[in-house]
Amino acid sequence: MGMSSLPPRSVPAALSGSTRTRLGRHRERGAVDRAALHEVLTEALICHLGFVADGSPVVLPTGYGVEAETLYLHGSVAGRPLASTPGQPVCVTVTLLDGIVLARSAFHHSMNYRSAVIFGVPRVVTDPTEKLRALECITEHLAPGQWTATRQPTRRELAATSVLALPLDEASVKVRSGPPSDDAQDVAAGGWAGVLPVRRGWAEPVTAPDVPAGIPVPQHVRRG
Amino acid sequence: MGMSSLPPRSVPAALSGSTRTRLGRHRERGAVDRAALHEVLTEALICHLGFVADGSPVVLPTGYGVEAETLYLHGSVAGRPLASTPGQPVCVTVTLLDGIVLARSAFHHSMNYRSAVIFGVPRVVTDPTEKLRALECITEHLAPGQWTATRQPTRRELAATSVLALPLDEASVKVRSGPPSDDAQDVAAGGWAGVLPVRRGWAEPVTAPDVPAGIPVPQHVRRG
Repeated sequence: MGMSSLPPRSVPAALSGSTRTRLGRHRERGAVDRAALHEVLTEALICHLGFVADGSPVVLPTGYGVEAETLYLHGSVAGRPLASTPGQPVCVTVTLLDGIVLARSAFHHSMNYRSAVIFGVPRVVTDPTEKLRALECITEHLAPGQWTATRQPTRRELAATSVLALPLDEASVKVRSGPPSDDAQDVAAGGWAGVLPVRRGWAEPVTAPDVPAGIPVPQHVRRG
Repeated sequence: MGMSSLPPRSVPAALSGSTRTRLGRHRERGAVDRAALHEVLTEALICHLGFVADGSPVVLPTGYGVEAETLYLHGSVAGRPLASTPGQPVCVTVTLLDGIVLARSAFHHSMNYRSAVIFGVPRVVTDPTEKLRALECITEHLAPGQWTATRQPTRRELAATSVLALPLDEASVKVRSGPPSDDAQDVAAGGWAGVLPVRRGWAEPVTAPDVPAGIPVPQHVRRG
């Protein structure tokens, strides 16, 4: 009811055997391969970073990038709390909403989605070479082609930027797809049911007002 | 750099005067009226619910609805941890990514976004009348028109559903919009800069395979 089947009661297992990522409700929705994890991370644009500050959870959106089995996070979002107390656990969640599942009963309404949940203790990236590479990952994830098309960071800019590295060790992926799962008597009663798919896309690039006339939108920006 | 200006270092203030919602970095991005909060909550589809379980943060996506100054959450996502230990604080974050900000320097890359962060201690909704109304809110938020178009919940379904209520008391909204903020020398150096807007929308509804031929997609589902 009211999206009853959307969210798992607990984080589903998949890619690790930890207690936190063990399958709870809707066990069938746990995806078990790393390819699924990387697919979600590649397709989504932002993540939600959760940490604990003064005993309370804090959840903030931020950009990220992936290199091999490391998730790099733009750390300014949580720079103070996480940098001042190293060794704190975080939870990074990445969600792709794929569609609204419209059942014949209110109870069986749901969402089609793919979500990745990553637990771990992030490392503050201090090595300048790794930091530069991490920022390239983060930038290219959201804006492919921009890293080489724009002015590279100065040492001062690099120092002013905080980057966190989180291993993709303790992670889980959960997926719901397909039509609604109505009760037999509701199906028999007739009526429409189905899925309203979410469409993701880009609008036309908007050139900044201080760009001189005649400078075209670069090809790599046109992702239409 | 690498979306440097996206995430605030700490949660910005706006709608409450609590420490947690006080303005940190990018103070100018804090929106101060409740209209902005409700706009974000109306336009977004899902939220990310953060809570603490066994000392670690957990962030999970879930559906929500709003009635007056109360946020209703589908609580199955966190039913066990939150119901078993009442009085636990949560953080609910709702993010709309509006565009990728493509600057002339890697450092000034950013995102245009609107995000709402709500702190509080949720109440488990037990009154059947309120629960039904809350589920209507949650369902109608994602699927307008569906509540009355589908079979209403039975008492058993209602009992099997967990709903949390969170007051919109301690909340903040943060907004970034507009073109990149490049350094003067980068602007002078020329080159393109601008924003790639995110387009949100719906694809054509997909009818479930067990719907008999000839039953049309209801008008309220066509949100094209």
